[in-house]
Amino acid sequence: MKHVAPSTIRRLSLYLHFLEACALEGQETVSSRALAEAGGATPAQVRKDLSFFGSFGRRGVGYPVPELAAHLREILGLGRTFRVVLVGAGRLGAALAHFEGFGDRGFRIAAVYDTDASKVGARLDGLVVRGAERLGADLQAAPADIGVIGVPAASAQGVADALVGAGVKAILNFAPVRLLVPEGISVKHVNLALELDALAFALRDGSGR
Amino acid sequence: MKHVAPSTIRRLSLYLHFLEACALEGQETVSSRALAEAGGATPAQVRKDLSFFGSFGRRGVGYPVPELAAHLREILGLGRTFRVVLVGAGRLGAALAHFEGFGDRGFRIAAVYDTDASKVGARLDGLVVRGAERLGADLQAAPADIGVIGVPAASAQGVADALVGAGVKAILNFAPVRLLVPEGISVKHVNLALELDALAFALRDGSGR
Repeated sequence: MKHVAPSTIRRLSLYLHFLEACALEGQETVSSRALAEAGGATPAQVRKDLSFFGSFGRRGVGYPVPELAAHLREILGLGRTFRVVLVGAGRLGAALAHFEGFGDRGFRIAAVYDTDASKVGARLDGLVVRGAERLGADLQAAPADIGVIGVPAASAQGVADALVGAGVKAILNFAPVRLLVPEGISVKHVNLALELDALAFALRDGSGR
Repeated sequence: MKHVAPSTIRRLSLYLHFLEACALEGQETVSSRALAEAGGATPAQVRKDLSFFGSFGRRGVGYPVPELAAHLREILGLGRTFRVVLVGAGRLGAALAHFEGFGDRGFRIAAVYDTDASKVGARLDGLVVRGAERLGADLQAAPADIGVIGVPAASAQGVADALVGAGVKAILNFAPVRLLVPEGISVKHVNLALELDALAFALRDGSGR
């Protein structure tokens, strides 16, 4: 497969979310201008992004909503179910387990772990929280696609090592720390602190976005 | 103030988080190479980023950790306390209220609101959840710097309108929807769905980061 830049993936994802919203409203076609706005891009960029993966849309008619959405889901690899393990059964973990976008998009939380013995055995949305030391044996029996790290910063690297050791290839990290992982493992970091810093700067600057 | 690109702010923020971790370990100086790695940049980019705001570091000695951290905090506008109102007292709201990076960096949650009448009156970390319809009057009495939106997608735009109407200039949005706000209002979006899409793509591609 051709190399695709992370910024392109991000735009494709934004186009898809916009198309899904259009589909809910019963819209049948969208213009490249509307897609561009949704993706923070120009109409020319939209055409370039989409033509990279094949031919779409007709001049003057726009893009067909359900077809383009289905194609983007396929491009993004969303046409399947992902087995997700969540490490961290605290409030963040509970919030994630309830995040509406999770299950909707084929991400199924298969098991929840915690490094804190006081949380082990508790129930989180029908799943019994398991001790993190069981990760290796559990994932050998039933491999997971994605590991979500929702533990405090100090425990995050150890959890990442355990996930990688158990064969997990993709990690979503909520801990405010940069993880070291081997080549070939994908890590996405949701770092609230960085977003807060950016807002602080905007308030100082007074210049808005 | 000179215009500063969002990508620069992001790197300054990453440098700062790295310096804070170094400070905790008692390190007195850091190299531009180490800063570059923390910020996902080159050493040349680090020097350019920092020289934009003045003169730092000495050739062969590196950057002084506490001084540079203090200066970055000043550049980012973090040398103060921010009054934050949180709209959405569900699990996500509770997780945010407990997020360790929030209070540490001067972001104080002053009040919690919800649009769901069944949550109004409940307690969240010592704050009584208030009805969202009180936002306007409350913020007229005591203005807030930042509004955090942790309500479901369908309610998010209404909450954003109410926050903007109440004079809030910066919004952190967790709802999976793009908000329309007037010029001059900063919005940062934490969109888990986009990160999940990127991981799905990485798993398909098999190419890692």
